[in-house]
Amino acid sequence: MRLIELTSSDDPRIDAYRVIKERDLVGRGGRFVVEGKTVLDVALSPRNRFPLESLLLAESRIEGLGGLLEGAPEDLPVYTASQAILDGITGFHIHRGLLGIGLRGEMPGAEQLIAGLPAEALVVVPLGITNHDNVGGIMRNAAAFGADAALFDFASCDPLYRKAIRVSVGGSLIVPFAREGSAEALLDLLVANGFELIALSPAGKTPITALPRPRRAAVLLGAEGPGLPPHILARAHTVRIPMKGDFDSLNVATTSGIVLHSLADAR
Amino acid sequence: MRLIELTSSDDPRIDAYRVIKERDLVGRGGRFVVEGKTVLDVALSPRNRFPLESLLLAESRIEGLGGLLEGAPEDLPVYTASQAILDGITGFHIHRGLLGIGLRGEMPGAEQLIAGLPAEALVVVPLGITNHDNVGGIMRNAAAFGADAALFDFASCDPLYRKAIRVSVGGSLIVPFAREGSAEALLDLLVANGFELIALSPAGKTPITALPRPRRAAVLLGAEGPGLPPHILARAHTVRIPMKGDFDSLNVATTSGIVLHSLADAR
Repeated sequence: MRLIELTSSDDPRIDAYRVIKERDLVGRGGRFVVEGKTVLDVALSPRNRFPLESLLLAESRIEGLGGLLEGAPEDLPVYTASQAILDGITGFHIHRGLLGIGLRGEMPGAEQLIAGLPAEALVVVPLGITNHDNVGGIMRNAAAFGADAALFDFASCDPLYRKAIRVSVGGSLIVPFAREGSAEALLDLLVANGFELIALSPAGKTPITALPRPRRAAVLLGAEGPGLPPHILARAHTVRIPMKGDFDSLNVATTSGIVLHSLADAR
Repeated sequence: MRLIELTSSDDPRIDAYRVIKERDLVGRGGRFVVEGKTVLDVALSPRNRFPLESLLLAESRIEGLGGLLEGAPEDLPVYTASQAILDGITGFHIHRGLLGIGLRGEMPGAEQLIAGLPAEALVVVPLGITNHDNVGGIMRNAAAFGADAALFDFASCDPLYRKAIRVSVGGSLIVPFAREGSAEALLDLLVANGFELIALSPAGKTPITALPRPRRAAVLLGAEGPGLPPHILARAHTVRIPMKGDFDSLNVATTSGIVLHSLADAR
């Protein structure tokens, strides 16, 4: 780890931090942004699947970091700056004062990811989930309950979007994921690899606690409101979370937590 | 229902809508704000425990409301306005275009609320939860799984804060709740009324799925990060949600969903 003190917001070495806002919007490209102590803690641990390019820390925060930086690779540039310089770099107030840039590198596609899974596997399959909080919440639960992978269709948003990583509390860095293609193509791939498709739906056939865990389980989650479309439900074993009759409404991240907990418990 | 077309942002009849932003911040007073179609749907149903004072709708949204307004009381004033007038009233862009003012009225305190509960009861007890999303998420889950009441300590934020109602998808209007006093005082009250205290904690003694449901169960939830303090845990039956060893982190609203689902299922 090399501590490098910045004396100007215009230093070209930290150009990657200038486009944080755009990176939020496009949610793609070779780099992503990590922020905050809890996420940095995961990012600097062996659980993080992605290399870090650099860190950028507010001087005032360094003392409170404790052993956080001890896990940092020797050659990782760690830039430090006053809060004013930091805000000047990003163009808005970074109140957490702790940022890092990660590198996606070559990410495996869905097919490659599935090929590497163990014989007994649990994957979560968010389809058409465009809300960053929900994508982050699903990745947090996937990490908490040890899902082997997450497979997003391309209509879903990127788990490496800044807010999704933050809400995932680093889960996006831990759980292997792919995001590509249509829901149909993902389901074809899963079925061809021996996965049982389990679709969550308020009108599902089996209550979740009565579902025996298949050796290879793929949990399909749709967006709140529309839910999973009929042609997807028709291909899957539909499962419901029993609720009180007149309020049939669960957040999709909470749903993922209940289902992953239930299936992890049944293992 | 009386449709009243507004022609100016200065109309004194809709003064209650001018202070929406402050109402967000203070989160108290005799009125609260409901917004969006899904929440208005709950607010206009018999499940809503609070009277409505008025509605304020963007003209452009009225056609798409379908039968939503059919449940409105005959004497409820429903103001309509152009989006420009609407934004002029609230001082910021109301992109949902659907607002209402609710009245708290005389809310029962915790003691009165508990006195009215059935012999078999499930209550959720959020302690020191200051995040509006989490309070809203807990109220949504409490409604979904039919919790009989929610008891917040005063350190927690108000379930009738605008964002909390929105995130609760109207659950805040359905589930009877009180918010008062210290955690200790609430626990005294619950114990005196025959409730078993169940405290969620990563180091809890019993896995949640092994917990038999007590006739009267009070589920204690602490803030993410600090969790419940040791003197609260010491008074309760501690329960854990088993997770993968190295990522011991669940959102508190998700936690409430898993626990309420598990206890509702055990009934």
